[in-house]
Amino acid sequence: MQVIVDFTLVPVGTGVSLSAYVAEAQRVLEKSGLVHELHANGTNVEGEWEEVMAAIRACHEALHAMGVPRIHTDIKLGTRVDRDQHMADKTASVRARLRS
Amino acid sequence: MQVIVDFTLVPVGTGVSLSAYVAEAQRVLEKSGLVHELHANGTNVEGEWEEVMAAIRACHEALHAMGVPRIHTDIKLGTRVDRDQHMADKTASVRARLRS
Amino acid sequence: MQVIVDFTLVPVGTGVSLSAYVAEAQRVLEKSGLVHELHANGTNVEGEWEEVMAAIRACHEALHAMGVPRIHTDIKLGTRVDRDQHMADKTASVRARLRS
Amino acid sequence: MQVIVDFTLVPVGTGVSLSAYVAEAQRVLEKSGLVHELHANGTNVEGEWEEVMAAIRACHEALHAMGVPRIHTDIKLGTRVDRDQHMADKTASVRARLRS
Repeated sequence: MQVIVDFTLVPVGTGVSLSAYVAEAQRVLEKSGLVHELHANGTNVEGEWEEVMAAIRACHEALHAMGVPRIHTDIKLGTRVDRDQHMADKTASVRARLRS
Repeated sequence: MQVIVDFTLVPVGTGVSLSAYVAEAQRVLEKSGLVHELHANGTNVEGEWEEVMAAIRACHEALHAMGVPRIHTDIKLGTRVDRDQHMADKTASVRARLRS
Repeated sequence: MQVIVDFTLVPVGTGVSLSAYVAEAQRVLEKSGLVHELHANGTNVEGEWEEVMAAIRACHEALHAMGVPRIHTDIKLGTRVDRDQHMADKTASVRARLRS
Repeated sequence: MQVIVDFTLVPVGTGVSLSAYVAEAQRVLEKSGLVHELHANGTNVEGEWEEVMAAIRACHEALHAMGVPRIHTDIKLGTRVDRDQHMADKTASVRARLRS
């Protein structure tokens, strides 16, 4: 089952700057080989359910290994069986409507 | 890795009443054997990462099998390595503070 | 416009224990007079859009006043114009289906 | 109080294609004058708490006016009192770490 996901990792019990942790999660995603895209409030990623969830889990493990004691993560995910869809299609179809 | 999760399945492209789908997801969770608790805006569940994610995936499969073409799901999840924690502990520690 | 909301405040840049902050947010909600209910991963609240959002904002202000430098909050909210619905109705209709 | 927000509107009880609704929400945000950015799973927006919340409420009203009977919305929001921060700063500081 293919999923399109947005997720945000929130380290708890650390300092107030989170960019080192977000950067580490980006490195984990890079190694996963999954299509992914950082935005101001999270990261979009798409792929097979198992692979995407394994990548998010690997981010948790990497951050805990950096010393983060507790992590709160938000995941928004979408599955559909009516047709194949990719992340790029979603913004493209909204933009097409805005131009028409 | 243990996780404490809150998740909400939102069927898209169906009628406006969602309770049949939420009930089906409850049946899937019941079969999973995981500790879970329905609330007004989602379901709390805890257990091993793989088992909890497999249960949420099984909910997606069950709803698609009921004819739901598209599902949006929100997951909030927490992991911690400083100590063992369960769902019941979280509300208990807040309530203890409110009484003191 | 009536809303049914689930929200979770995640203090960032503090210690690993969050129960003091969750308890403070419960006190803020208590003062708001809104119907609300704590669960293991957040708090459900319902009421007029403006009042609910003002209560969540008041929680942010209260936590910052306690010294929390940064707060990440998740809100899941629902509005509907087909009929009036309350939090208690949502779980009741799922439970009725599970019994039938 | 300044907020940085990611939000996703999920129309319920409509057809399976949601791009017309997302496009309408983009028009509402455009009129609001707030800094905003569409991504594959939502929209990032920043500004004063009251203005951002009023814009999201205006999106709900616009979609209900288009005939959407029920809307589920996810909001992730951040406030901080330690320093001023904008959406563009967040991705820039992660990218700076990835380059170093």
